[in-house]
Amino acid sequence: MFVELSFLKQIADVAAEQTLPRFRNISLVDNKYQTGFDPVTEADREAERAIRRLINASFPEHGILGEEFGGENLDQSHVWVIDPIDGTRAFISGIPVWGTLAGLTIDGDAVAGLMAQPFTKELFMCDGEASWYEGPGGTRRLETRKTIELSEATLFTTTPALFKDEKREAYDRVEQTVRLARYGTDCYAYAMLAAGFVDLVVETGLHPYDIVALIPIIEKAGGVITMWDGGAAEKAGNILAAATPELHARALDLLNR
Amino acid sequence: MFVELSFLKQIADVAAEQTLPRFRNISLVDNKYQTGFDPVTEADREAERAIRRLINASFPEHGILGEEFGGENLDQSHVWVIDPIDGTRAFISGIPVWGTLAGLTIDGDAVAGLMAQPFTKELFMCDGEASWYEGPGGTRRLETRKTIELSEATLFTTTPALFKDEKREAYDRVEQTVRLARYGTDCYAYAMLAAGFVDLVVETGLHPYDIVALIPIIEKAGGVITMWDGGAAEKAGNILAAATPELHARALDLLNR
Repeated sequence: MFVELSFLKQIADVAAEQTLPRFRNISLVDNKYQTGFDPVTEADREAERAIRRLINASFPEHGILGEEFGGENLDQSHVWVIDPIDGTRAFISGIPVWGTLAGLTIDGDAVAGLMAQPFTKELFMCDGEASWYEGPGGTRRLETRKTIELSEATLFTTTPALFKDEKREAYDRVEQTVRLARYGTDCYAYAMLAAGFVDLVVETGLHPYDIVALIPIIEKAGGVITMWDGGAAEKAGNILAAATPELHARALDLLNR
Repeated sequence: MFVELSFLKQIADVAAEQTLPRFRNISLVDNKYQTGFDPVTEADREAERAIRRLINASFPEHGILGEEFGGENLDQSHVWVIDPIDGTRAFISGIPVWGTLAGLTIDGDAVAGLMAQPFTKELFMCDGEASWYEGPGGTRRLETRKTIELSEATLFTTTPALFKDEKREAYDRVEQTVRLARYGTDCYAYAMLAAGFVDLVVETGLHPYDIVALIPIIEKAGGVITMWDGGAAEKAGNILAAATPELHARALDLLNR
């Protein structure tokens, strides 16, 4: 075990204190149009500050790389990679499929992570040994679905419009082969892949803070996540996540055909 | 007032008893692959049966038009139009943006309605006089955002792939003009429009049971919803919903240019 689940839950709690009061807050949103105040930017920054304070207090020797405030102590072996609100467009649209992401890397490998959705009160966590769900449906191990055929797979991506030229052709080859394709969920799609309800996520243009937290959650649930060239997903960029090694190999082949 | 909010909540309750236990139920999903049993179809049918029993018992003189079991007493002035699970693809993918829809029409006009999301415990309701939200954020009146410029609007649609030929060109004209476009939310996008977080929803190929319940919720929150030709939204088909009359007029003009 690389980190206690209770510490991942603390991260979720301090972030939720900053994000949840600003989610769907009509008075704050109205205020934005009058004063330029942006509730999602405030939530993003305050949540990242809170997470950094917690990590600094608990593990002062750990480094931190965050979406909002960059890197600190990145020469350490243990580095947390955090995105306080992944899915800001869902956040500002009131759709509860955004999440708080925090992943722990050791010498560059993602070993533990958290995806927290505070409105639905759901946690998707990996402590380094197993992946866990906590939410209204109770607590249970996360386990991917055993889908191996593309023709039986459910595929998610944020929007196909993000894929340009050859990448769009590559993505379209996968979409045309699967049973069901859906758009618009950001980190929630990876969480549902780990939970066994989605089989493939294909994305492009990701930053490490968009994906590092999700890697161990998916891997310890039985899934496979890499770049489109098969390289380590920690480098981000073009990402393919699959419920099983067999499905991953088939989708990777289609992407690179 | 055309219907008590308490009756709309009863509809939500009896539907949730059938849908929620089947949402993300791993054992049921696994079972499907072995036996052909389909949890979303079961949930759809059992929820519609439960809603019909409730309406028959409370308003025996009212007609009912449902997605699963068709029409009964459609010659009555009062007819309920129901879709037990709008967004079945979201349901099977574990994404909590599906909903139970029930709308009351009088002589063909939608006058009251309910959109219920039982996993997030949210109700979006119109009793004929006002539109109401009940959920984790408390209870409040629903009110659309006062967006009048397309360039400031957030637009939702299920997927642009549903628009063919001239319809796709018409949709694209709107998408290219707005500030933010998002996909993949079914009835939840209309609910967020009524709640003031989304400004436009553009869709095609809708059935009356996909939209009737949402019409009064949007209208009594300050929005406008019609077909693309400006006709009554109760006829379904191509639908445009907007947060304000001004925004509706501008989007309608673009769709028909």
